[in-house]
Amino acid sequence: MTQNIYDTPDFFREYSRLERSERGLDGAWEWPLLRSLIPNLEGKRILDLGCGFGWFARWAREQGAVSVLGLDVSLNMLERARAKTSDEAIEFRIVDLEDAEFPECSFDFVFSALALHYVRDLSRILKAVNHALCDGGRFIFSVEHPIFTASRNAQWLQRNDGLKTWPVDSYSDEGLRTTDWLAKGFTKQHRTFSTMINSLIGAGFEVERVEEWGPTADQIASRPDLAEERERPLFLLVAAQKF
Amino acid sequence: MTQNIYDTPDFFREYSRLERSERGLDGAWEWPLLRSLIPNLEGKRILDLGCGFGWFARWAREQGAVSVLGLDVSLNMLERARAKTSDEAIEFRIVDLEDAEFPECSFDFVFSALALHYVRDLSRILKAVNHALCDGGRFIFSVEHPIFTASRNAQWLQRNDGLKTWPVDSYSDEGLRTTDWLAKGFTKQHRTFSTMINSLIGAGFEVERVEEWGPTADQIASRPDLAEERERPLFLLVAAQKF
Repeated sequence: MTQNIYDTPDFFREYSRLERSERGLDGAWEWPLLRSLIPNLEGKRILDLGCGFGWFARWAREQGAVSVLGLDVSLNMLERARAKTSDEAIEFRIVDLEDAEFPECSFDFVFSALALHYVRDLSRILKAVNHALCDGGRFIFSVEHPIFTASRNAQWLQRNDGLKTWPVDSYSDEGLRTTDWLAKGFTKQHRTFSTMINSLIGAGFEVERVEEWGPTADQIASRPDLAEERERPLFLLVAAQKF
Repeated sequence: MTQNIYDTPDFFREYSRLERSERGLDGAWEWPLLRSLIPNLEGKRILDLGCGFGWFARWAREQGAVSVLGLDVSLNMLERARAKTSDEAIEFRIVDLEDAEFPECSFDFVFSALALHYVRDLSRILKAVNHALCDGGRFIFSVEHPIFTASRNAQWLQRNDGLKTWPVDSYSDEGLRTTDWLAKGFTKQHRTFSTMINSLIGAGFEVERVEEWGPTADQIASRPDLAEERERPLFLLVAAQKF
């Protein structure tokens, strides 16, 4: 089963204080880029893998989606998501993405923000998503970038020449990475770029677009501390279509 | 015009001593992986962008290709390539990939090994390649990996914790990189993954497979010094099809 650190009180308290937890989609630096990949949602049945507090589900309904099913492994997250809406076309369900299954052609659009790097068996969930989509349906997701996840000691390095640099090591050795993010022993899966692209293709998707989030000039102007995120790509965003 | 450091005597002498220059394809670490992407060449008209000493052209003819046109910017390289074969179905031509153009549907397969990271305008050459291919034709290429090209000071770092790590910085800032490889002032173009994938799609290709070369257990067994290449991916290999 996926590590459910989100239901650990200390972690959940810290996570709830993040800008993206308090402000929702507009508090997520990569949202403008992610949003640019999302097709028209009017009339669509939507699945959201790793829905968290349900920000995307509520936004999708505002965009005209007919229904949204949000899945998450964290009861804490889902309870807060449910408290934030009385919309009967939104359902939140506790599900481990490690073994989630869906009926054939039951969704028109699948979304997942920063959840798939927790899943051990990427090919399995991608095949389940492909099965769940109708032909021509789109799947848009974001994950932590392989450059961000690779190192066994993932912390900025200050070099002798004054440059700040991000370490990459163990890149070809995929699998578990343990870091101290908001709490000790936070775990995720490092996967290479090629594994992600080839797993998508192998699951029956065509890759339509790939983005790597780095802050725009406007973002740096309003948040100068974001400038360092141009040094390394923090998030990988992918748009794929079932063909 | 592309920097033509290959025609500088000192650089050319050093380059000629590389394992891949002396032993050809079998001297290139990534060749087994690259070869695994190449379709059946029987009866195919082939274009090789950055043909160097012509190792691939001669191999392609052994595989049954009907003709091979090899292009390179370096006269030194082409003279040696011409001296190595009397095969009339192989032609070597001096051409700068920065402005190469080809007739529509004039090739069935296009190959390029470690040349496109010298080209400033990637989208232009990809569109030219797409135009040159017949429908269903394949394009297989290798380039230096974005993780390898990103840093302004691309050298291994020895960390305090004993780990050897590869620096990534300036990732989002694409363009010229100058290093000291075999000679001072060696230049190449850093491009992100997303730019490469999106440029291919934008030029009319469908991405079929992506590989990132790291040494296999067998390669490390026979060449223990290659082990460090599992820390960072040195080469990016892509298989695409004109649809």
